[in-house]
Amino acid sequence: MASEVENPSPATENRIDGGNTASADGNPTIEIASDSSESKVSKKQAKKEAAKAEKIRRKQEEASAAGAASAKLAETDPLACNYGDVPIEDLQSKAVTGRKWTEVGMLDAKLANGTVLIRGVAQTIRAVGKKMAFLVVRQFTATVQCVLTVSEELVSPQMVKYATSLSRESIVDVEGVVSIPTEPIKGTTQQVEIQVTKLHCINRAVSNLPINIEDAARSEEEIKEAEKAGEKLVRVNQDTRLNNRVLDLRTPANQAIFRLQCSVEDVFRDFLRSEDFVGIHTPKLVAGASEGGAAVFKLDYKGQAACLAQSPQLYKQMVICAGFGRVFEVGPVFRAEDSYTHRHLCEFIGLDVEMEIKEHYFEVLDIVDRLFVTMFDYLDEKCKKLLDAINRQYPFKPLKYLRKTLCLTFEEGIQM
Amino acid sequence: MASEVENPSPATENRIDGGNTASADGNPTIEIASDSSESKVSKKQAKKEAAKAEKIRRKQEEASAAGAASAKLAETDPLACNYGDVPIEDLQSKAVTGRKWTEVGMLDAKLANGTVLIRGVAQTIRAVGKKMAFLVVRQFTATVQCVLTVSEELVSPQMVKYATSLSRESIVDVEGVVSIPTEPIKGTTQQVEIQVTKLHCINRAVSNLPINIEDAARSEEEIKEAEKAGEKLVRVNQDTRLNNRVLDLRTPANQAIFRLQCSVEDVFRDFLRSEDFVGIHTPKLVAGASEGGAAVFKLDYKGQAACLAQSPQLYKQMVICAGFGRVFEVGPVFRAEDSYTHRHLCEFIGLDVEMEIKEHYFEVLDIVDRLFVTMFDYLDEKCKKLLDAINRQYPFKPLKYLRKTLCLTFEEGIQM
Repeated sequence: MASEVENPSPATENRIDGGNTASADGNPTIEIASDSSESKVSKKQAKKEAAKAEKIRRKQEEASAAGAASAKLAETDPLACNYGDVPIEDLQSKAVTGRKWTEVGMLDAKLANGTVLIRGVAQTIRAVGKKMAFLVVRQFTATVQCVLTVSEELVSPQMVKYATSLSRESIVDVEGVVSIPTEPIKGTTQQVEIQVTKLHCINRAVSNLPINIEDAARSEEEIKEAEKAGEKLVRVNQDTRLNNRVLDLRTPANQAIFRLQCSVEDVFRDFLRSEDFVGIHTPKLVAGASEGGAAVFKLDYKGQAACLAQSPQLYKQMVICAGFGRVFEVGPVFRAEDSYTHRHLCEFIGLDVEMEIKEHYFEVLDIVDRLFVTMFDYLDEKCKKLLDAINRQYPFKPLKYLRKTLCLTFEEGIQM
Repeated sequence: MASEVENPSPATENRIDGGNTASADGNPTIEIASDSSESKVSKKQAKKEAAKAEKIRRKQEEASAAGAASAKLAETDPLACNYGDVPIEDLQSKAVTGRKWTEVGMLDAKLANGTVLIRGVAQTIRAVGKKMAFLVVRQFTATVQCVLTVSEELVSPQMVKYATSLSRESIVDVEGVVSIPTEPIKGTTQQVEIQVTKLHCINRAVSNLPINIEDAARSEEEIKEAEKAGEKLVRVNQDTRLNNRVLDLRTPANQAIFRLQCSVEDVFRDFLRSEDFVGIHTPKLVAGASEGGAAVFKLDYKGQAACLAQSPQLYKQMVICAGFGRVFEVGPVFRAEDSYTHRHLCEFIGLDVEMEIKEHYFEVLDIVDRLFVTMFDYLDEKCKKLLDAINRQYPFKPLKYLRKTLCLTFEEGIQM
């Protein structure tokens, strides 16, 4: 077992727009030619690359201009310490301040009038004149509305301007007082607002992201209804989603799907553990095909032929013969099948169970029966918010299931 | 996700000695030649094969003779229903009898004078004259002594003879009354005995197993001490163990190692889940090497070059950038490194963690710190029996650890 703990700095956006710093020196074609392994760059290509580099340069200029602007704003504002971009040096493990962040999903009426600090992404920013701005902050599947209102002691007009200059999906720290709005808030999951007193940007996103999260989070139904009403909403296609997976994964539905998947594994494990099953991990690099029917991925294992396991079957049976009694495995399964359908995967996570039978295969049916009911109950009772988040993008009907699976007696079976 | 539940009949031993039933017809060479894809079998080879087949035939004859003998025994015994081999047909999901089996590890003084039914393997069988026999039955890491004493109403001399005819590692059902012996029992984990009233064999093992479990369970220290005293004990080598893994895994130490491994994963998961981590499973078939330094297994993915993931690093960082906050993964890691040492594995199960840092890397240290202390505490408090089982074969000293990891302050670090 290896244990690896590493820290990615939250600098994705930096990487996206700062990926080609060399081209910012004003001589992009030469730069690219010397970097490229192909020495003959056609004029057309060079022109294209130059245009691209120019675009990047302009973007960077804009960004630094925005930075300069915010610095200029700050100079003339006595309340400047309440907002602004946090310099990168300040993010590099400088101090343990002891500040506590509240999770957006935990914000509710109980916290009313209290001061909270949250960190999330700026999902939408809307100015109302020069003295007010609304900022919806998202964390995981939860969203909250943050309100900036100009006041003499806390919020300067410059601060409102700063807020509206933030690009979408930038990471922000918001401090403020929790308040309960008179009318229910549409479009956010939390039913409280934050009256902002401090607003700092941890990391600015580029202004033109390849995917707008609100577009990506829209259901097909919503798009079709809007079409009927004559409005054209953006539909984000599968390829765009997969090419920008980091952004696509920010949608509430995807956040919920992954969390739900983890919950299913939790229940699977916990239930089986309570029934005396032992979790095992079997080899994935094996000497031969593990199942007859399915196609297998072959590879070279230091000069010997090896296969990727199509099933943990052999190893599960071995441990049963070795007297383990009951075992399970959660792990990858590889099948090189030539079926290109939505329901066919060359690699998937298998939930595998193997058990010794004392006298009748009904013992297995009983375990499977109770396992699924336990799982469904858990999803029903504990995962409501996650299911709702998925339901908004991919509508589904509630799962119906029997508490006890209907079983035919032998005689009833014969009558059929 | 696929869920597979299958039942291996406990018939390994059958498979071992009955692997080539065709050769039992008395004409083994012809049989083998017609089966073999190589048509020219040299005389020497043919002779060898014939000898092998003859050996198998003899073994089978012996086995059927044993069966016939036990049948003969039964014929003349009015108490015959209390013992015997269970016919294979009776093991094929014929009836749900409602019988309850007690786990060997659960047998203790509280059950004294009660009747219990256990299923396990006959680890050792010892006759004391014609009227008494001792049978040590093992299940998982636990063993219990079962006593057969001839009595008019329950145990016939034929039953004692039947018990002593059982081969080691055969699977048996034992019913009897729990009793507390006057002297502590050496050599079994449970400190009660079972006064046997019924004994049935579910599956007979071949009489000559490649590994004797008691030999395989012996510690190196024990062998060396015996050598000093002039006694030569059998040492089971690594290659024999790996070639007969199903038997080697029956040793208490191996049973405990796998169970302990599962417990470590339980604690890892539970602790991280309680700290808001989400468990993920990342792709193992990837387009390029995941880490610079380590060698990679390459394979053909339907005409495209693919690699086995050397680390979930990229995907972990992607989900952190996608706003998952904290994630972990338990899954295989593949590294085609040319290091042939005991501590180098081409495939291992990685326990991977990735988290967002709010302001200081101390946040990671804090998690790691508490994770390990929680793990060690659990092993210390809940896994005593498992650790003892491992300790008997592979002696070790108890793990010492601090409740709080010592941290140097920045100033202390400078002074060094």
